[in-house]
Amino acid sequence: MKRLSMICLFLLVWAGTMFAQTLKSPDGNLTLQFRLSAEGTPVYSLQYKGKDVIKESKLGFSVRPDYQFDRNFTVTDTQTSESNTTWKPVWGQYSEIRDHHNELFIAMKQNGTGWLLNLRFRLFNDGLGFRYEFPVQKELRHFTVNEEETEFRLTGDHKAFWLPGDYDTNEYPTTTSKLSEVASLIDSVRQEPLAIRSATPNLAVQSPLMLKSAEGLYINIHEAALVNYPAMQLNLDDKGFVLSTHLTPDRNGTKAYVQTGSVTPWRTIVVSDDARDILASNLILNLNEPCKLADTSWIHPTKYVGVWWEYFTGQGSTWAYTDTQDIVIGKTDYTKLKPNGHHGANTAHVKEYIDFAAKHGFDAVLVEGWNEGWEDNYAYSKEFIYDFDKPYPDFDVAELQRYAQEKGVKIIMHHETTSSVADYERQMHDAFRFMNKYGYDAVKTGYVGGIIPRSEHHDGQWMVNHYLRVAKTAAQYKIMVNSHEAVRPTGLCRTYPNWIAQESARGTEFESFKGNRPDHTTILPFTRLMGGPMDYTPGIFEGDLSQYGSNQAKLSTTLVKQLALYVTMYSPLQMAADLYQSYEKHLDAFQFIKDVAVDWDNTYILEAEPGDYITIARKAKGKNEWYIGGITDENAREAVIDLSFLPEGKKYEATIYADGKKADWRTNPQDYVISTKKVSSKTMLKQRLAPSGGVAISIKELE
Amino acid sequence: MKRLSMICLFLLVWAGTMFAQTLKSPDGNLTLQFRLSAEGTPVYSLQYKGKDVIKESKLGFSVRPDYQFDRNFTVTDTQTSESNTTWKPVWGQYSEIRDHHNELFIAMKQNGTGWLLNLRFRLFNDGLGFRYEFPVQKELRHFTVNEEETEFRLTGDHKAFWLPGDYDTNEYPTTTSKLSEVASLIDSVRQEPLAIRSATPNLAVQSPLMLKSAEGLYINIHEAALVNYPAMQLNLDDKGFVLSTHLTPDRNGTKAYVQTGSVTPWRTIVVSDDARDILASNLILNLNEPCKLADTSWIHPTKYVGVWWEYFTGQGSTWAYTDTQDIVIGKTDYTKLKPNGHHGANTAHVKEYIDFAAKHGFDAVLVEGWNEGWEDNYAYSKEFIYDFDKPYPDFDVAELQRYAQEKGVKIIMHHETTSSVADYERQMHDAFRFMNKYGYDAVKTGYVGGIIPRSEHHDGQWMVNHYLRVAKTAAQYKIMVNSHEAVRPTGLCRTYPNWIAQESARGTEFESFKGNRPDHTTILPFTRLMGGPMDYTPGIFEGDLSQYGSNQAKLSTTLVKQLALYVTMYSPLQMAADLYQSYEKHLDAFQFIKDVAVDWDNTYILEAEPGDYITIARKAKGKNEWYIGGITDENAREAVIDLSFLPEGKKYEATIYADGKKADWRTNPQDYVISTKKVSSKTMLKQRLAPSGGVAISIKELE
Repeated sequence: MKRLSMICLFLLVWAGTMFAQTLKSPDGNLTLQFRLSAEGTPVYSLQYKGKDVIKESKLGFSVRPDYQFDRNFTVTDTQTSESNTTWKPVWGQYSEIRDHHNELFIAMKQNGTGWLLNLRFRLFNDGLGFRYEFPVQKELRHFTVNEEETEFRLTGDHKAFWLPGDYDTNEYPTTTSKLSEVASLIDSVRQEPLAIRSATPNLAVQSPLMLKSAEGLYINIHEAALVNYPAMQLNLDDKGFVLSTHLTPDRNGTKAYVQTGSVTPWRTIVVSDDARDILASNLILNLNEPCKLADTSWIHPTKYVGVWWEYFTGQGSTWAYTDTQDIVIGKTDYTKLKPNGHHGANTAHVKEYIDFAAKHGFDAVLVEGWNEGWEDNYAYSKEFIYDFDKPYPDFDVAELQRYAQEKGVKIIMHHETTSSVADYERQMHDAFRFMNKYGYDAVKTGYVGGIIPRSEHHDGQWMVNHYLRVAKTAAQYKIMVNSHEAVRPTGLCRTYPNWIAQESARGTEFESFKGNRPDHTTILPFTRLMGGPMDYTPGIFEGDLSQYGSNQAKLSTTLVKQLALYVTMYSPLQMAADLYQSYEKHLDAFQFIKDVAVDWDNTYILEAEPGDYITIARKAKGKNEWYIGGITDENAREAVIDLSFLPEGKKYEATIYADGKKADWRTNPQDYVISTKKVSSKTMLKQRLAPSGGVAISIKELE
Repeated sequence: MKRLSMICLFLLVWAGTMFAQTLKSPDGNLTLQFRLSAEGTPVYSLQYKGKDVIKESKLGFSVRPDYQFDRNFTVTDTQTSESNTTWKPVWGQYSEIRDHHNELFIAMKQNGTGWLLNLRFRLFNDGLGFRYEFPVQKELRHFTVNEEETEFRLTGDHKAFWLPGDYDTNEYPTTTSKLSEVASLIDSVRQEPLAIRSATPNLAVQSPLMLKSAEGLYINIHEAALVNYPAMQLNLDDKGFVLSTHLTPDRNGTKAYVQTGSVTPWRTIVVSDDARDILASNLILNLNEPCKLADTSWIHPTKYVGVWWEYFTGQGSTWAYTDTQDIVIGKTDYTKLKPNGHHGANTAHVKEYIDFAAKHGFDAVLVEGWNEGWEDNYAYSKEFIYDFDKPYPDFDVAELQRYAQEKGVKIIMHHETTSSVADYERQMHDAFRFMNKYGYDAVKTGYVGGIIPRSEHHDGQWMVNHYLRVAKTAAQYKIMVNSHEAVRPTGLCRTYPNWIAQESARGTEFESFKGNRPDHTTILPFTRLMGGPMDYTPGIFEGDLSQYGSNQAKLSTTLVKQLALYVTMYSPLQMAADLYQSYEKHLDAFQFIKDVAVDWDNTYILEAEPGDYITIARKAKGKNEWYIGGITDENAREAVIDLSFLPEGKKYEATIYADGKKADWRTNPQDYVISTKKVSSKTMLKQRLAPSGGVAISIKELE
C-alpha cells in the first residue's frame, strides 16, 4: 500500500473537535466524511453520486463497568492510502477478484482515560467497510462491551427485506416492508415455529439487511470477517430511520470480551442505484484476510445427493435406528436394541445412493442418521447425546467406504450436535480422525436447538469462535465444512476456503413445512448470500409431498425454478436434494443438474430486483460452458437474457429448460419444456417464466 | 446381599397413605422411619439411641415445567436387605473397610402423572445414607429440577460449623455459632475477599455441615457420590431449625438436567454421641461405587515439595515469566519477550528443589508457573489464557525430566485454568499426552475465578461433570489428579483412586493472606475432609512472612502444630510446603515430615472435639511404625494420648516433637522440643499443647 499523506503532526496541534476528513471511492461515486463532533464523538457519513446514503452517524462503544467509550476523543494520527490488487479465490463466482479501495485510518485518544481507539475505513466503488481497532495500550488491556454504538442513519423510510432480530436463529422467512411497518409486523413473524428462538427485547432486525430507497438506491448492510466477536443485529429506530449495532449478548448480558491488540469485524455498506451491482459485489470477501491455508489442493467444489429429503417427506424414514428412546450414549449397546425397520442410513440404502451418484456423475453422497444418539434428538437439554465415531449397527462404515471408493464417490459425514457444543468440541478431534480413517473429506455440521453451554447463543462471541474453530480444526484434517444453523457468514470462506458452505438461513427443508414463499429465493442472494455461499439444497422435482404420506406440503416453485437455483443461489457445494426416484422420473430435466458447474470463472448478473426476479449467467471454471438461471417470484414475467457475455465471433448451442405454457407453482409445477437453440454473443433471449417459475440454460461452444 | 423381606404384594393392596416402614442399623442404635403422609408425600425421620436426630422430614422434587413431584405417591414395592462386606481401598486411612448396613428400598408411583420415583436408604451403625432413583419409565424421560426438596428437620438450635452458602467457592473461613446466629453473622463472613463468590440469595450454608446438639449429639450432613448432579447447599430455616436441599443452579436458574435411568447422590447423616466416631466414619466412602479402574498399580501416595510457597511469601517470585501482559496465547512468541528476572519455575531453581527432594526422600516436586499464559492470570474473563503444553523459555522440560529421573524424583504437573474450563477441555488430551511424554504422573489442577462457560458455577452439575471427566480422562493416561478450587469431594476417590486429593477448602495459602484462625484445622476434619483427602499443604516452619518482604502475615499455628497436621489432616498426598531453606534451618523438626507416612493400615481417633482439638494415631501401611498428631485451637491444653492401639507385649521408641514451654503461635511459634521415650501399649502420654500448638510423635518398634 502506498501512503498518500502523513498529516498527523499537523493534526496533533489541532483540537480533536476540529478534525474532519473526506475520502472518495476510486471511481469518485462514493464519498465518506469523517469528523469528531463537538463532544469529541467520531461521526461519519456516506454519499453516493452526491446524495446521502448514510447521514452523519456516530461511532463508539459503551464498555463495562459502565463507561462511554464514544466521546471526548482527540485524533492523534491519520493516514490515507490506496490499494488496487487482485487475488484468486480457491473457488468462487469469479476466478479472479479485484480489490480496489481507498483507505482512511484514524487514531484517537480519549481525554481523561487515555484509552486509544482506532478506526479504519475502506471505500470501494461498490461500498464502504469500516472497523474499530483496539491497539495494545498500557491503560486498557481487557474490557467487556456493553454495546457497540455504531449508527447507520438512513435518509428515509426505505423498503426493507428483513428478519426479526434474534440471537439464535436466522431461519425466519424474510418479510418485505417499509421500515416504518416493521414494528406492526414483527410480532406475527416471530410466531414462526422454529427449534429455537431468542428474540431481541427491542425492535431489531438481522443483517445482511437489504434496503431500497424511494429514489431507487439499493443499500446492503452487513459485516465482514466476524472473528472473536458477536454477530451484529440492527436496532431499528423507526421514527428517525436509524439503524444501530446490537451485538448478540451471552445470557448474562455481556456482548463481547475484548483484549486490546484486536479489531472488530468490518461494518459493510454496499451501495448502488443498480440492484445487479449488489449481487456482483465482492466487497465483503475483499475485507476478509487472504487464505490462511498453505495447501488447498484437497478442497474441491462438490455436487452431491444424499439420504436426507426422505426424513422430511413424511414417508417414514428416520434418522433414528430404533424407537427405544432411553439411550445413555456411550453405555447403551445398540446391537441389543430392536431396530425400528425404517432407519434411513442403512448400508443397503446408502449403496443405492452411491450407485445413483456414480451413474450420474455426482461427487458425493451425504448420509444423515448414521451415528448413535438420534433417538433422543428432541431432548434439547441433553448434553451427552451423540457419539461421532459410533455408527449404528446397520451402517457398515468400512464396507461403505470400500463401496464408495470403488464407485468413485465420496460419502459426506454428518455431525448433528443439536447444539450440545461443548460436547462436540470434546469429540471433535476423534470425530475428524474417524473421518480420515474412513475416507470422508467433508462434514455437514448441525446446530439445531439451544446451545450448551447454556450461557451462549448461536450468534454470540463464544459460538462465533466455535464455528471458526471447527473450520480451522477441520482444515488440519483436510476436511471441508458445511455448517447448518450456524451464524450467518461474513466472507470468512476466503480465509478458510475449506469452510465451503453454510446453511444459516431458511433452506429447502422448510418446503416440507409449507414454509417458503415464491419470492424467497429472489431475496436470499441480496441478504444471506452476501456473506458467502449457502447450502440451500435445491432440486426438488416431486413437490407434492402428499405423494409420500400424510404431509400436505407443496413446493413453492415450479420444477424449472428448482433447476435455475443451481445458478442463482451461488454455492461451491450443491445438493440434488430430492429422492433419486424423483430424478429417474425426469431424467431429461435432471440433465441440467448433472451438467451445471459448481465453480466459476466469471459471473454476469443480467437482471435483478430483490423480491421480484434474478437472472444470472456464469462461465464454468476452466471450461467453455455457461449456465444461466432465471427465477421470478409469484408473478410470471419475461426474462430478457442478453448473451453478450459470450465471447464474440463463435457459435454456441443453448439447451433451454423452460416452464411449460401451463406451468404454475400452485397448479402445475412439473410442466416444463426443453429445447435447444443456436446462439451467439449477439443473442437476446426472451423467456417467459411462470408464476414462481424459472428458466435454466446451459450453453456449450459448438466445435 | 440377602433379601430379608418381600412384602410388596401386601403393600400393593394398601393405600399409599397407609404405608410406613421402620429400619434399624445393624447395632440397633439408629432407627429410620419412613412413611407416606396423608398427601402421599414421602417423609422420613431418624432416631439415635431412642432420641430424634432428624424429625419427620419430607422428600421429593419440584420439576420444570412447574410441577410438584413430591406428593400423591403410592408405594408400589418395598425391599429390605442387609449387607456386611469389607473392601480394600487403593490408599486410605484404613487398609480394609467394613461396609455393614441395612437397606430399605421403596418404589413409588405418583397418582395422576404415573411418574415413578424410588428411594433407597442405607442405615449404618454410624449414620444414614439415602438417595433418589429415577427408573427408566415411559411417561418421564427427561426433566429439569427446579429444586430437590429434601428436608433435615433438626431437633433444636444446634451449634454449627458453617460456611455461607455459595455456588462458586468453599474457601470461606468456618464460622462456629448456633444455627439461630447464622443470619446475623453471614453477611460479614461473606465480605471475605475471594477470587470468586456467588452467594445463595437466601440463608443457606454449605455441606459438609457439622452440628452439635445441646445434648452432645454430633451430626454431620453431607452427600456421597456426587455424579452428574449439582452439589448441595443447605437452606436454613433458623426458626424451625430445618435444613433443606438447595441445589447449585446454573446461571439460568436450572438446578439439574435429569434423564430417567439415573440416581441422585446420597444424602448422608453421620451421627454419634462421641465426636471421634464422626472422624472414624467410612460411611461416605461406603456409599460410593467400588473402584472402576482395572489397574491401580501406578497410583501411589506422594509426599512432595514444590516451587509454590515463594509465590505467597512476598519475596517477589512470580508464576509469570515476563512483565509484558499483552499476551495472545498461541501467537505471542515468548522467546522474544524480556524475562522479568524473578520467574519461579526456572530450570536452575527447579533443580534445587529436585536436589532437596532427592536428598530428603521426597517423592516429587510440584512446579507452578511453568507454562505460557500466567501474565494474564488476573484477566478472569479471558478464555484463551494458558497453553498446557508450552513451557516458558526458561523451563527446560526435557532437561528437567532427565535430571529428576536421575535423582529418582517425579515432577508434578500444574494446570491452572483460572476456570477457563471449556478451553481446558479442548487442551486436556494434548496436555495429558505432553505429561506422558515428559514423565509426569500427577497433576494439580486449579479453578481460580469465574467459570467459562459463563452459564456455570463451580458447584453446578456441568462443573461436577467436568471435575470427574478430568479424573477419568487422566486415569486413561495413568495420571493422578489433585484438584484445587473444585467442588467439595464426596468420596469419589474410592471409585477413581487416581483422584488422589483435592483442595476445595481454605488451605495453607490463606496463611499468607492472614486468613486462617487457630481453630481452623480442628474443624476441617469434621467438615471438608468428610468427603475425601485434602491437599492442605502444611509444613510452614517460617511463619513470619515479614522475613521475606512486605507481607506482614504471621502463621496461625506453632511449628509443631504444622508437623501434627501431617497426621490430623488425612491425605495420601502431602506437601512440605515451605521453602527448602526453612527446612534446612530446622532439620531436626523436619525429620518428622521426612518420616511420616502417607498411607495407612489403621487409624485411631484418640481425642476429638470440633473447633477445639483433635488427636489421631495412625499405623503406617505395611510397617510397624505409628504416627500421632495432636492439635489444639487458640487454647493450650493437655493431650492425653493412650497408646493402647500398639500391639501388646512389645517395646517401642517414641520420638516426641512438642511445643516448647514458651511456645505460642502469636509470640514464639518456633519454640519446640524433641525428645525420645520408650513406650508400650500400656503407655498413657500426657502432653501439653501450646496455644494453637500441637504434638507430633513417631513410634517405631524396638528390635
